Amino acid sequence: MIDQSTIAAANEAADADLRADYDALGDHLSRRGIDIAAIKDKVAAYGVAIPSWGVGTGGTRFARFPGAGEPAGVFDKLDDCGVIHQLTGATPRVSLHIPWDDADPADLLAKAEETGLSFDAMNSNTFQDQPGQAQSYKYGSLSHTDAATRAQAVEHNLYCIEMGQRIGSKALTVWVGDGSNFPGQSNFTKQFERYLESAKQVYAALPADWRLFTEHKMFEPAFYSTVVQDWGTNYLIARELGEQAHCLVDLGHHAPNVNIEMIVARLIQFGKLGGFHFNDSKYGDDDLDTAAIDPYRLFLVFNELVDAAGTPGFDPAHMLDQSHNVTDPIESLMNSAMEVQRAYAQALLVDRTALAGYQDTNDALMASETLKTAFRTDVTPILKMARRDRDAAIDPVATYRRSGYRARVAETRPSSDGIGGGIV
Amino acid sequence: MIDQSTIAAANEAADADLRADYDALGDHLSRRGIDIAAIKDKVAAYGVAIPSWGVGTGGTRFARFPGAGEPAGVFDKLDDCGVIHQLTGATPRVSLHIPWDDADPADLLAKAEETGLSFDAMNSNTFQDQPGQAQSYKYGSLSHTDAATRAQAVEHNLYCIEMGQRIGSKALTVWVGDGSNFPGQSNFTKQFERYLESAKQVYAALPADWRLFTEHKMFEPAFYSTVVQDWGTNYLIARELGEQAHCLVDLGHHAPNVNIEMIVARLIQFGKLGGFHFNDSKYGDDDLDTAAIDPYRLFLVFNELVDAAGTPGFDPAHMLDQSHNVTDPIESLMNSAMEVQRAYAQALLVDRTALAGYQDTNDALMASETLKTAFRTDVTPILKMARRDRDAAIDPVATYRRSGYRARVAETRPSSDGIGGGIV
Amino acid sequence: MIDQSTIAAANEAADADLRADYDALGDHLSRRGIDIAAIKDKVAAYGVAIPSWGVGTGGTRFARFPGAGEPAGVFDKLDDCGVIHQLTGATPRVSLHIPWDDADPADLLAKAEETGLSFDAMNSNTFQDQPGQAQSYKYGSLSHTDAATRAQAVEHNLYCIEMGQRIGSKALTVWVGDGSNFPGQSNFTKQFERYLESAKQVYAALPADWRLFTEHKMFEPAFYSTVVQDWGTNYLIARELGEQAHCLVDLGHHAPNVNIEMIVARLIQFGKLGGFHFNDSKYGDDDLDTAAIDPYRLFLVFNELVDAAGTPGFDPAHMLDQSHNVTDPIESLMNSAMEVQRAYAQALLVDRTALAGYQDTNDALMASETLKTAFRTDVTPILKMARRDRDAAIDPVATYRRSGYRARVAETRPSSDGIGGGIV
Amino acid sequence: MIDQSTIAAANEAADADLRADYDALGDHLSRRGIDIAAIKDKVAAYGVAIPSWGVGTGGTRFARFPGAGEPAGVFDKLDDCGVIHQLTGATPRVSLHIPWDDADPADLLAKAEETGLSFDAMNSNTFQDQPGQAQSYKYGSLSHTDAATRAQAVEHNLYCIEMGQRIGSKALTVWVGDGSNFPGQSNFTKQFERYLESAKQVYAALPADWRLFTEHKMFEPAFYSTVVQDWGTNYLIARELGEQAHCLVDLGHHAPNVNIEMIVARLIQFGKLGGFHFNDSKYGDDDLDTAAIDPYRLFLVFNELVDAAGTPGFDPAHMLDQSHNVTDPIESLMNSAMEVQRAYAQALLVDRTALAGYQDTNDALMASETLKTAFRTDVTPILKMARRDRDAAIDPVATYRRSGYRARVAETRPSSDGIGGGIV
Repeated sequence: MIDQSTIAAANEAADADLRADYDALGDHLSRRGIDIAAIKDKVAAYGVAIPSWGVGTGGTRFARFPGAGEPAGVFDKLDDCGVIHQLTGATPRVSLHIPWDDADPADLLAKAEETGLSFDAMNSNTFQDQPGQAQSYKYGSLSHTDAATRAQAVEHNLYCIEMGQRIGSKALTVWVGDGSNFPGQSNFTKQFERYLESAKQVYAALPADWRLFTEHKMFEPAFYSTVVQDWGTNYLIARELGEQAHCLVDLGHHAPNVNIEMIVARLIQFGKLGGFHFNDSKYGDDDLDTAAIDPYRLFLVFNELVDAAGTPGFDPAHMLDQSHNVTDPIESLMNSAMEVQRAYAQALLVDRTALAGYQDTNDALMASETLKTAFRTDVTPILKMARRDRDAAIDPVATYRRSGYRARVAETRPSSDGIGGGIV
Repeated sequence: MIDQSTIAAANEAADADLRADYDALGDHLSRRGIDIAAIKDKVAAYGVAIPSWGVGTGGTRFARFPGAGEPAGVFDKLDDCGVIHQLTGATPRVSLHIPWDDADPADLLAKAEETGLSFDAMNSNTFQDQPGQAQSYKYGSLSHTDAATRAQAVEHNLYCIEMGQRIGSKALTVWVGDGSNFPGQSNFTKQFERYLESAKQVYAALPADWRLFTEHKMFEPAFYSTVVQDWGTNYLIARELGEQAHCLVDLGHHAPNVNIEMIVARLIQFGKLGGFHFNDSKYGDDDLDTAAIDPYRLFLVFNELVDAAGTPGFDPAHMLDQSHNVTDPIESLMNSAMEVQRAYAQALLVDRTALAGYQDTNDALMASETLKTAFRTDVTPILKMARRDRDAAIDPVATYRRSGYRARVAETRPSSDGIGGGIV
Repeated sequence: MIDQSTIAAANEAADADLRADYDALGDHLSRRGIDIAAIKDKVAAYGVAIPSWGVGTGGTRFARFPGAGEPAGVFDKLDDCGVIHQLTGATPRVSLHIPWDDADPADLLAKAEETGLSFDAMNSNTFQDQPGQAQSYKYGSLSHTDAATRAQAVEHNLYCIEMGQRIGSKALTVWVGDGSNFPGQSNFTKQFERYLESAKQVYAALPADWRLFTEHKMFEPAFYSTVVQDWGTNYLIARELGEQAHCLVDLGHHAPNVNIEMIVARLIQFGKLGGFHFNDSKYGDDDLDTAAIDPYRLFLVFNELVDAAGTPGFDPAHMLDQSHNVTDPIESLMNSAMEVQRAYAQALLVDRTALAGYQDTNDALMASETLKTAFRTDVTPILKMARRDRDAAIDPVATYRRSGYRARVAETRPSSDGIGGGIV
Repeated sequence: MIDQSTIAAANEAADADLRADYDALGDHLSRRGIDIAAIKDKVAAYGVAIPSWGVGTGGTRFARFPGAGEPAGVFDKLDDCGVIHQLTGATPRVSLHIPWDDADPADLLAKAEETGLSFDAMNSNTFQDQPGQAQSYKYGSLSHTDAATRAQAVEHNLYCIEMGQRIGSKALTVWVGDGSNFPGQSNFTKQFERYLESAKQVYAALPADWRLFTEHKMFEPAFYSTVVQDWGTNYLIARELGEQAHCLVDLGHHAPNVNIEMIVARLIQFGKLGGFHFNDSKYGDDDLDTAAIDPYRLFLVFNELVDAAGTPGFDPAHMLDQSHNVTDPIESLMNSAMEVQRAYAQALLVDRTALAGYQDTNDALMASETLKTAFRTDVTPILKMARRDRDAAIDPVATYRRSGYRARVAETRPSSDGIGGGIV
């Protein structure tokens, strides 16, 4: 972890400017009828989960270029996640990936306590073959034509649930790479029937207070068809499985041009929005830093979430899911957590009464302006003040750099060879 | 109509070559274990419906360039559709669009009998304002914020059903342009609730032996969001409405890269495939001639249909829906009907036993080859012989050109001014 | 025009809040080392041209829903453009489209003086047939296979130049709909050779102080291929023609996912960026209001422009080009002009020294943050103050609504029938 | 290699059916005025190069699932390539990738002679870091901000040329992964200037009888911008470098919906088409088997090539470039080579005189039909006969499976661990 005095010193230096900016924004917002403190409190209470695999450097099928001080295992990863939460105050939970993060539950709980974290959804992995594995997932897992392979994949998911129960998780996220690369390779219908049959077995093992999140994705690693290719199929899965099953929306898993915020609204309307994997993308599942490419799109998603707040049973999970190929993963995750907070804060500023009025009268221009006005507001002082109030860093990246954390861990962590790990 | 002797003379001249090609293909197919006559009979029994609006020259928002002899009204259109069916033997039904084709039902039935046609699904129109209309559809129809506008749109659909009942139609196709052009313009959820409420009123008026087809479309005329934007929403509609409600798939209404044949499979699996609007596209809803851009994609759709044949309750409607901007619409519709037949014939040639075996053993390459082998087979002689057997034209386009039909009707039909009509 | 006292009264009421916001922003920017007044002066000096056709309600191939008080001809259009400039102070020039705006040059100049406007680039129209036209553009214009049609299209462009010379224009924008709807319809190479031959004839007639802007577009109205389909072809045209020829970039004319700001940079680097048609889009050439969908993308374009400012010969033309289907066109154009100004102001705030340093050291995260910091800054007070200083409206839309302008002109302008006009 | 008697036996069994199909097709074609033997001779003379890396199982960033008997090094790869050519007679050349295939040139030449192969274009690799490499390519290679890294990348390319000269290659293919993942990360213009400067150094070292192929790609491994992002930039590179520089078109490297055959035509027209990397894709750079997804698109590319045949200086290089994730790479490469031959044969069947006539008269429908008629022709008997004539296999995949080649090499080759190798 980072010495708290480093943070305090940095905050001290930044305090006067922050105070001025915060007060000016408070004055401005009060002229718009908004109480800045109420917004700040909501932002302060907001958290987004970190994926354990996100703290390693990601890569592509062409190469991976690791940095110094890469985490060597789950305990190193939890250290890094702890630093992220220490500096941002926005990432209280970590989502583990099994078997990558398999370890003694007691040790995991101890490390979590040490780093001030708890555990979010468990992630199973049936898209890779592990050494010694009996059946290969080359041609699928939960939907494989071979019963033994499906059984192995189901079994692995049950193990993830069991593991999760022992560390306080309350959800299982299932993403499979199942699909096909050639027209004709798979019978779409039989493949989906097999998927549903396997998923029902997983669902049956779900503890009563758990949720099952299934994730759709248009393509990759399969390049002609994917079993859970879009929200339509994902919805059918959640409906077939039952009330504890919900759909997870990864922002990068859609066809070009698709209106994602509308998908979010539809899933909310039909009671099946499970949560998010936040990231950004320009081309495919690029897994870039959240809001790096299209910050307004993220805002529009949060606009739906804020609009739906208070709906009974509405409680989507929020998680980052990115691949950090050219940045220090800790920095990217900190910035991305803050971008998610930013979109949330902006969405809180939307004048919903005015918006509803414009919608009812088809005043498209003023409806658009109402959203834009909220989006344009620079809420940075609110985010900073929320951090400062909880002794996190006003400027997490600068403070992190000043702390020398990366160089310090690089001294003790083995150097990575560019192969394996960190692949998302 | 075209003088039958013109057809006979053209067929006579083409007969020897056709016989040679057909026999050679028959020999080849018998070596593959396929009886060519059985395929020919299935093709001969197949028909695709013509959209009445398809026989007019289409256009874009930039311009429309009408040809000579454009049909001036529904009776001219039925004449043109009659010629298409006379020459191809493949288009026994016409789908009307109200109010474009509004007329006395008795007159329509008489004209249908004269031209050898019957009536397919009725199409309502709530995406344009008609002269004298009380409420405008500028901001929507079935999902409009204003109750009176919704009621007017519902009423129009009920009128279409009533009209259809009097001319022997058994289905109503509902496509709306409702959506929004700006983030914030519409509340996604309330808009969809209104849509469902209106659609339920239409559904309630459906005769017991009718089906309701709803059509999804990603964008255009709305450019930020569309109420029925994809098959996911379309499925929800069909499920909410009831057993007589099904989803219509227009091949051009999807996001880039989307796997349409898989959507077809999903809708079949869940009992909600209503039918098709066939056309082809490269960029958006281009409404190009069927199979003009990607003939293999059309084949893959038919591969799903042939695979599902025999499933109880499986009976999708087949209709063309194209915009003919640079060709004689009669020629394009004839060719497109033949392309649909071609894809059907090719799909019938798939060795399904072998395919199932390759799928079970994950032999992706041979599964792909099994489909490709069927697709590569030049089934033209089968299509020609099916036409010749029923005294339609072996070569419809050449025979049509020789007949002088277009020049003849151009003498009596008023010239079109490039505005209105034929826009799809 | 709008009574100046209406503006003054509205500004008076908004003045205190603006002053407070402006001062607060000035303080904040000065802490970032930026002089707000210098930014404001640059913004105040910035102008974007209005397309004359933009003040009419646009439409799609499905329908057009005109509003009340639509402009009936070029003089009405100039009145509307005058109002836009009066209220925003940001749109000093109008771009005419021939033959839609054909009129006596003396009358045009008189009207321009009356409305405080001047004339930007001339636009030719060879994508529609006009009544009485000898040759049809159904199959192309500058690239048509028929020499007489090409000659007619060239001649029309020469007329546009001549007309433009008489009203003070200094550029001709050429966009053609030429292309094809079927593979095989056109020989790509011969078609482009014909295009180049025709374009050279137009270029030869260009006055020495004029520029020729050619515009690329991926698709629509042609749906298989377009002669000037992308910036690559557009660049080849500009190079073949000569130094006065440049490429025009319409933000909506690209393939999905394409990095437009990079195209802008390439054209600048090779001396061929002619200018812009600003708008926004989600799916195709949606022609939505600028920055309505992805404001960060617009900012990134302006980031390139500000970065290139000062390069010898760098002087791109800025024009809006939108289709206003569901809003009052005057309101949309005012808002869009302000959005362009906003992106310009934000781009001026980029700390370019810091950015260059981050780029040199591959500090991707901080480089991104440097752009985001500028983008996040709410520059609204700067835009407002720039307007207030020149007696334009602090809040143009509200002032316009209060003025009753639309209702007033609706009394004297004929009602529109939903056909023709306003199509972009 | 495979025992020639295995091939002879298989051919013997297939001979009668082939003869019947070939004769029937010959009769049919002669009725269309085409001499089947002339087509067969052209097909027999046609060859496409194999990428050495293609014979290994490919993978994605998520996983790689190797098969049995994976080639362990360049000599194993050449054995596999030799088998492909032995069975298909269509792949006489192999394209090497350095440093993956680095070896003693004398040994390479000896192995080539043994396997009946020669060497096609050399491929450099500056998108991965190799053990012991001084500078990292994490942030680019030829366009890196650091001069030493650029120099290292240039040096590597010079080494590839030198190596190629010693094994009879006549071309260097340069594909770089350079780009950026965040807006602002790279200055587009400076980055491209550095690229050009480095590329000029490589070009300067090119022997007089060599060609330099540069390859564009829209995205991946960089996800916001790519230095050589499209054919426009690629063309600029080739023009800046000189006459020996040409553009390589990989079919999977374009934006969604882009008309690739038109790009091919443009590059031909301006003398800069260098060659192809053939594959197929549905979503991104999927690297699927050629013609597996859209066989008509491949035909349309070959339609351009056949149309341009005979143009002075027109001599594009043909190479496969695929990632075989779920098939035996040898089988996929054989099938893909045959698919390329198929498209070539079909394009040779186009009635170009008729097509030119339809194009001149804007008979879009018949122009399209002219292409479709050629495409629909099942040319399989021509391809088979061309193979049989040269003692290759009538049915390469079946013969290969019967030969037991893969099982045999699996006995001696080490098993692969799923990491590294085969990544394309």
